[in-house]
Amino acid sequence: MNMCELIDKKKRGLELSTDEIYAMISGYTRGDIPDYQMSAMTMAICFQGMSKRETLDLTLAMRDSGSVLDLSSIDGIKSDKHSTGGVGDKTSLALLPLVSALGVKVAKMSGRGLGHTGGTIDKLESIPGFNTSLDTPRFIKQVKDIGFALTGQSMALAPADKKLYALRDVTATVDQLSLIASSIMSKKLASGADSIVLDVKCGSGAFMRGQEDAEALAAAMTEIGRSAGKSVRAYITDMDQPLGNAIGNAIEVKEAILTLKGKGPADFTELVYTLGEGMLTSAGITSDSETARILMEKAISSGSALDQLARFVRAQGGDDSFIYDENRLKISQYSTNICADEDGYVTGIDCDSAGLASLALGAGREKIGDEIDHGAGIMLHKKCGDEVLEGNSLATLYSSDEGKLKAAAERLKAAYHIGKEAPGKRSVIIKEVV
Amino acid sequence: MNMCELIDKKKRGLELSTDEIYAMISGYTRGDIPDYQMSAMTMAICFQGMSKRETLDLTLAMRDSGSVLDLSSIDGIKSDKHSTGGVGDKTSLALLPLVSALGVKVAKMSGRGLGHTGGTIDKLESIPGFNTSLDTPRFIKQVKDIGFALTGQSMALAPADKKLYALRDVTATVDQLSLIASSIMSKKLASGADSIVLDVKCGSGAFMRGQEDAEALAAAMTEIGRSAGKSVRAYITDMDQPLGNAIGNAIEVKEAILTLKGKGPADFTELVYTLGEGMLTSAGITSDSETARILMEKAISSGSALDQLARFVRAQGGDDSFIYDENRLKISQYSTNICADEDGYVTGIDCDSAGLASLALGAGREKIGDEIDHGAGIMLHKKCGDEVLEGNSLATLYSSDEGKLKAAAERLKAAYHIGKEAPGKRSVIIKEVV
Repeated sequence: MNMCELIDKKKRGLELSTDEIYAMISGYTRGDIPDYQMSAMTMAICFQGMSKRETLDLTLAMRDSGSVLDLSSIDGIKSDKHSTGGVGDKTSLALLPLVSALGVKVAKMSGRGLGHTGGTIDKLESIPGFNTSLDTPRFIKQVKDIGFALTGQSMALAPADKKLYALRDVTATVDQLSLIASSIMSKKLASGADSIVLDVKCGSGAFMRGQEDAEALAAAMTEIGRSAGKSVRAYITDMDQPLGNAIGNAIEVKEAILTLKGKGPADFTELVYTLGEGMLTSAGITSDSETARILMEKAISSGSALDQLARFVRAQGGDDSFIYDENRLKISQYSTNICADEDGYVTGIDCDSAGLASLALGAGREKIGDEIDHGAGIMLHKKCGDEVLEGNSLATLYSSDEGKLKAAAERLKAAYHIGKEAPGKRSVIIKEVV
Repeated sequence: MNMCELIDKKKRGLELSTDEIYAMISGYTRGDIPDYQMSAMTMAICFQGMSKRETLDLTLAMRDSGSVLDLSSIDGIKSDKHSTGGVGDKTSLALLPLVSALGVKVAKMSGRGLGHTGGTIDKLESIPGFNTSLDTPRFIKQVKDIGFALTGQSMALAPADKKLYALRDVTATVDQLSLIASSIMSKKLASGADSIVLDVKCGSGAFMRGQEDAEALAAAMTEIGRSAGKSVRAYITDMDQPLGNAIGNAIEVKEAILTLKGKGPADFTELVYTLGEGMLTSAGITSDSETARILMEKAISSGSALDQLARFVRAQGGDDSFIYDENRLKISQYSTNICADEDGYVTGIDCDSAGLASLALGAGREKIGDEIDHGAGIMLHKKCGDEVLEGNSLATLYSSDEGKLKAAAERLKAAYHIGKEAPGKRSVIIKEVV
């Protein structure tokens, strides 16, 4: 295979064969194909696209670039969940304990965050003692023992994707549908689960701003997963304002705990229930969504979902007393409020600005390796559609560095749009992609 | 400047500013911008193109990436000539001595070849003692003394172009009009001449196969040159069959000498005269083409053009006795003929196959650093439109390695198309682009 000829083929809009895609990905993983050829290829793909067959081949080639986790020793259907990400997205922290309390086997690999807040792994590290790095035998054993384990992404899974993503990130080739879908799905397929629920965010704070793009991505990922023999369900959900009220790390864990206590924000609770319906029905716990929802409501009211979160935290070395008394989670000591300048309604909360405010507080990373201030973050008191009076607090900002509050507050203030008329209602669940 | 943002800008079809293009090229030349970002940019340019302003800025930024030769100490108009290349193109070897014999100051930088035969520099090295590497003071002094000097391309001129061309060559981004035009013109502008004559080849053996593409390239280069204050004349010329009869190195020098003796092939002689008209009028030697042609015919019939070639060879350390007795030029000892299988007319000679035959004989380089067999090559006895009888020799092939003859002969045989009807006449000069 001559890589220059392959680039030219794609540039001219021709389809790459399965063998060509495999040779390209294995050559790139080994380092035989240099970055400068791969970036020319990904740019050509941005213009010419990839067929469904090519996209599937690329996904499988990246999956096969490293080891594929073998979960077959765990009985039953193993489930995984993926979100395309957004501001205030602590869904895994509530959803996974909830469905695993009801018998879904959850074996999840999760990443660290680069952006407004940490990733799920970073958020869980707000709990003292919590270990986010399990080796494979321990990871599998924990799923067998308690039905739920979560660990950081192993470097051994889909190394081609890691290398390619890092390259795309610095060559303006991130936003191509086939490349996005194959990147996500190669990791999901390498993680070994049988059933995958996809939460594709849509709106100002999402990677896919328009609903059409989000649906196309959801459809592409669903098709890849099903072609690879997985059960896949995908939902388009709202990210036009931050999800729930908390943005940060410890503060998001706290909100997830409250949700498992039945006291979570309405939008976030609805999202957890909807994705939970998908996971419970896919895993065969029940065949219909109504029953699934009743089961979840019971698991929350009975405390069994919270108990499952505590069990999970304990199994991974964390102090579960923080789960039962979420106020023990350390929120940073310095805080400030932003207030409404006029009477009216919240007509919008710009996700980008809110995310940048969170980053400015110290809750996220600007570059790989940055330290996270787990206690930093934001609590939104008013969300879209809420009525406000002049002087009402819109949100509280927290940081361990008092000097960071002012600039972050200004950013967050700019994120809030107040109008005289109440905006139309927008549901957190936009649609399920079938 | 953030290179990733620049790539994204071009990818979205927006124009890069002058400052952005200069920053990009100087950053790339310094090594601050890595190859993988530059190749993504050039691929984006392949799809989105560049405006005339961007193309000019790119050319000037590459010109300014190194030193610009200062020829101001030489009196009068300094002239240069560039060909986009093809099979059997020995034009500089005859044209430049001819016009310099008539008073045109020629200061030419020339490259080594990568392909069917060597470049002009390699061809001249067929002459014992000829030195193709002059330092700048000597180069300038020789133009002052005898009106003509030719040297290998200095690494100090347009280093950005050298680096970028090497990258484009391995990332399938060679064939973009603005990139081609800026690459050629950045070197021409850095070489310091006032007047530039461009020979843009068109046909099966040319980089630009179609006339429309060749004209677009000629127009783009002309516009760049004129915007940079140069006098530019461009011609579209035929490369649908090899130029002249000789393909190789020593064998092409021989044909150039014969042409200066008035015994050259008709197509090649016509090309030399036409480009010569452009050079003589641009340099102000005469104001009209008819006079220019008469002057050239006289320079050939009087022997002054040949004397000028001899003077030039002597000035650069070569043995000029080879010029006056071209049979002393060493042609390889092993040879074979290919013959017509049937009666008819030559309807086509495929340039690619003829070029590959030449390469197979040892006359060219497959990769940088390969040794050239200066004596290897091809003499075509029949060209398009010529009548042939079964058994007539079509061409003779020469090599210093007897084992190379058979495969090369098969390739050359495949290049010849014989038909029952005489093909329409095609002139070597297709048009001048004004």
